[in-house]
Amino acid sequence: MCQLINNKKPSAGLSLALGKILVSLGAFLFSSTLSAQSASPLEVSQLIDEYRASREKVILQDFMELLSLPNIPDNQDDMDLNVDHITALLEARGFSARRLQAGGSPYIYAELMQPAASETLLLYAHYDGQPVQLENWAYPPFSPTLLDATLQAGGQPVDVEALTGSFDPEWRLYGRSAGDDKMPIIALLHTLDALAANDIELSVNLKILFDGEEERGSPTLGNIIDAYPGLLDADLMLFCDAPMHQSRNVQLVFGVRGVKTLNMTTYGANRPLHNGHYGNWAPNPFMQLAYLLTSMRDESGRILVEGYYDDVAPISDLERSAIAAIPDITESLKDELAINTPEGNGARIEELVMLPALNVRDMSGGSVGNAISSSATVALNLRLVANQKPETVEALIETHIAGQGFHIVYEDPTDDILRSNEKVIKLDWVGRGGLGIRTPMDGVMPQRLAQLLQSVIPELILTPSMGGGLPLEDFTTRMDMPIIVLPLANHDNNQHAENENIRLQNIWDAMSIYGVILANFGNR
Amino acid sequence: MCQLINNKKPSAGLSLALGKILVSLGAFLFSSTLSAQSASPLEVSQLIDEYRASREKVILQDFMELLSLPNIPDNQDDMDLNVDHITALLEARGFSARRLQAGGSPYIYAELMQPAASETLLLYAHYDGQPVQLENWAYPPFSPTLLDATLQAGGQPVDVEALTGSFDPEWRLYGRSAGDDKMPIIALLHTLDALAANDIELSVNLKILFDGEEERGSPTLGNIIDAYPGLLDADLMLFCDAPMHQSRNVQLVFGVRGVKTLNMTTYGANRPLHNGHYGNWAPNPFMQLAYLLTSMRDESGRILVEGYYDDVAPISDLERSAIAAIPDITESLKDELAINTPEGNGARIEELVMLPALNVRDMSGGSVGNAISSSATVALNLRLVANQKPETVEALIETHIAGQGFHIVYEDPTDDILRSNEKVIKLDWVGRGGLGIRTPMDGVMPQRLAQLLQSVIPELILTPSMGGGLPLEDFTTRMDMPIIVLPLANHDNNQHAENENIRLQNIWDAMSIYGVILANFGNR
Repeated sequence: MCQLINNKKPSAGLSLALGKILVSLGAFLFSSTLSAQSASPLEVSQLIDEYRASREKVILQDFMELLSLPNIPDNQDDMDLNVDHITALLEARGFSARRLQAGGSPYIYAELMQPAASETLLLYAHYDGQPVQLENWAYPPFSPTLLDATLQAGGQPVDVEALTGSFDPEWRLYGRSAGDDKMPIIALLHTLDALAANDIELSVNLKILFDGEEERGSPTLGNIIDAYPGLLDADLMLFCDAPMHQSRNVQLVFGVRGVKTLNMTTYGANRPLHNGHYGNWAPNPFMQLAYLLTSMRDESGRILVEGYYDDVAPISDLERSAIAAIPDITESLKDELAINTPEGNGARIEELVMLPALNVRDMSGGSVGNAISSSATVALNLRLVANQKPETVEALIETHIAGQGFHIVYEDPTDDILRSNEKVIKLDWVGRGGLGIRTPMDGVMPQRLAQLLQSVIPELILTPSMGGGLPLEDFTTRMDMPIIVLPLANHDNNQHAENENIRLQNIWDAMSIYGVILANFGNR
Repeated sequence: MCQLINNKKPSAGLSLALGKILVSLGAFLFSSTLSAQSASPLEVSQLIDEYRASREKVILQDFMELLSLPNIPDNQDDMDLNVDHITALLEARGFSARRLQAGGSPYIYAELMQPAASETLLLYAHYDGQPVQLENWAYPPFSPTLLDATLQAGGQPVDVEALTGSFDPEWRLYGRSAGDDKMPIIALLHTLDALAANDIELSVNLKILFDGEEERGSPTLGNIIDAYPGLLDADLMLFCDAPMHQSRNVQLVFGVRGVKTLNMTTYGANRPLHNGHYGNWAPNPFMQLAYLLTSMRDESGRILVEGYYDDVAPISDLERSAIAAIPDITESLKDELAINTPEGNGARIEELVMLPALNVRDMSGGSVGNAISSSATVALNLRLVANQKPETVEALIETHIAGQGFHIVYEDPTDDILRSNEKVIKLDWVGRGGLGIRTPMDGVMPQRLAQLLQSVIPELILTPSMGGGLPLEDFTTRMDMPIIVLPLANHDNNQHAENENIRLQNIWDAMSIYGVILANFGNR
């Protein structure tokens, strides 16, 4: 577990010393006490590390075997091979496993019930992957390849078969889904092996759900939950996806932003017009968009639509304290990204992503010639936060746009509509949009998890909300359990892109974290 | 000539009656008197019409022969064939012709001097054409094809060889350069034949310049003028290019707008950022452009850059009167183009194009994913008017942009530049830009020409300036002669695009106009 701490390898003594620091840090945010356990969290962490150190090659080979199964949901045969393979791995560990399907790709459900446990954990990961563009990959995406450094640093392939002993934890395993999101599957299974090898019992009932369509937005997840009532019920859900904090510190994330996509199109003449002959007379649709956008959002990012912040969940004192305790990465981020002055009037990014955002993603519609185009389109991504309802957001924005003098349509306007309205805008709301979600940080289960992990990871980061989205909505609207996101992949894992990879240390750390949670989270 | 009038065929009596209307209309704008002529303008016009009516097939065959010569400047052999062919046609009419070349495509110069003439006319047209995309043409662009109606109206090919007598003047001849700009060449040569056949002497020395690189912006025209000092000197230049007024009335145009192209790029982070994780914190380059654009131009099209209108040539009373006399096409244009409310606060388009314009042509730079892009670019076409200097415009705009808090660069900024400036903008001034030009409407030669043509075309439109540009700058900066643009092609000739065409009536009208000018313009 010691590798979790800033990637150094301090002695057990230092780990223990750091553990003491937690007492003050943890007490700052949480006040409950740890339950009695047969092996302390630090002991569990050390035992898992020792077990793993002797088995790295086997774990890696298991992982490579799983990664060699293509997992793009377009090919259902491939998905079935994944399901069969993972199911066999689960059953070999004593799980009772089922294939759940309700109109989409299959999900894998499995459980390992403990007669003595009073709490149930639901662990989520997904086994599907993003499509690949073969020509962009340095090594074939489904021929997992271990490199002795990152590609950018000139990493060269390592022959895993020929290796003995422990590996350099900075080595990287390249392959589709190495970071997003097959790693938690392998880490969990080998954690269970490690616990069994050390005769450590699980302190909780363990339920797992491995999603087969996450990269498509889990379109049938709601159907699954509805079709198997009670099956997924748990006291706490751990959503194991997404990359870790850039500082490499372990992080628990208590919320996500939702998203709503809006394309807006304004109109000039019904055909492109020579901007010499007509410039100053023909309406310019790009200028209409420019004025509209500046009426919707100020230069600091504040949304100017009336009532837009009315529903926004306020930031609690606990959440503000948590943000204040997170190492401030603003300056290093500004340097890395070459940004002089971020938006937000100096507020921290962790606070700014708890507010709704109106992001201009693209503007398009111009012509190659010297024309005033007949239309121009802006693509917006609206990021929503907890309590904001997509329907309300839609209504507020439409009221604002109408107030700017636009006649709103939802299909391409006819010439008659253009002739009879001073300004016309087509709104294309792409889908309903997803909710922003925040799990209260003061809940019993979230507090217990944070305190447990802080006992072995004093630098644990507690993040009230990430800025991006995750498919949590179907769980929160259909079920009643706190959800905490536990990211485990290195932040530079290239998820969704070519050359996706996992840093070996991140697998090892995941095992330690899982071990501590499984052995020590439950009240026994 | 009567066909010139709204495309009807009134009797000679009506023409004469309309001629009388001119007396009051013409006197409104012009006060000089016509010089004595051997044949009156109306007589000349009628004689040309009669001659042409008996020779339409020959004229058309001559034109088709010229149009069958490919004239894309990329192929110099093709251009040489055009030069040889046109030169032979000119020499057959007694011209002394020369090939002028100064680093680019050849120009054809020719002159027909008249011992008794005191004025010299320079007539400009161009024999080169725009590139063609063969697959888009209904008939091969260099196999000129006569149709019995427009393509849109279902026109079918007509076998010219099999025809006798006069043709329907609404028929269209399709082929590259039919409208832009070989027609004036053929019309002029057959006008000379018609004058000769009627023993009508030219009243002026006639110089012609046929440009071989107009579609490329006549890059070596300045060299040509410099290399042959005095050769092109004239009392008046007729620039025979561009389409006619949409009303089909003959039009003299006294000015053009210049153009200056500016691409502006703003910057966010040095790589695209996930707009969930970074939205509200990372600067959005599209929003920066939106704010900048709205600071540069109001919703009516008025440019807000300080001092921008200081150099703009004021609109004279004569010009205002001329505009007031032009048939107001605003309502029909709004209906045709499906525009409810044009820019310009209700001013007429003819007046608005005498003002500088800031046209947004395109905005681009977004990503396909959910990213805040690292840069965004807006493409502007600045239309300049007479007296505005491109250098001054450049300076004023840069001062304005700097005043909006931008650090200006002219190359892609380094990360260090981005880090050390709150807002960075890259300006790409594409070329120096072209001048706006206006020939004073009260000059002796312009007045004489307008009055002459009004004596046969009461509906003659006098337009102070067109909105677009033409390559007049090298003539105005290097020479001292008034330039008047005389458009002769139908407004729907599809210039620069596929299926370029000329309406037969436009050829016949061009001959009448040339005949009247050549026979009656000079003081003899």
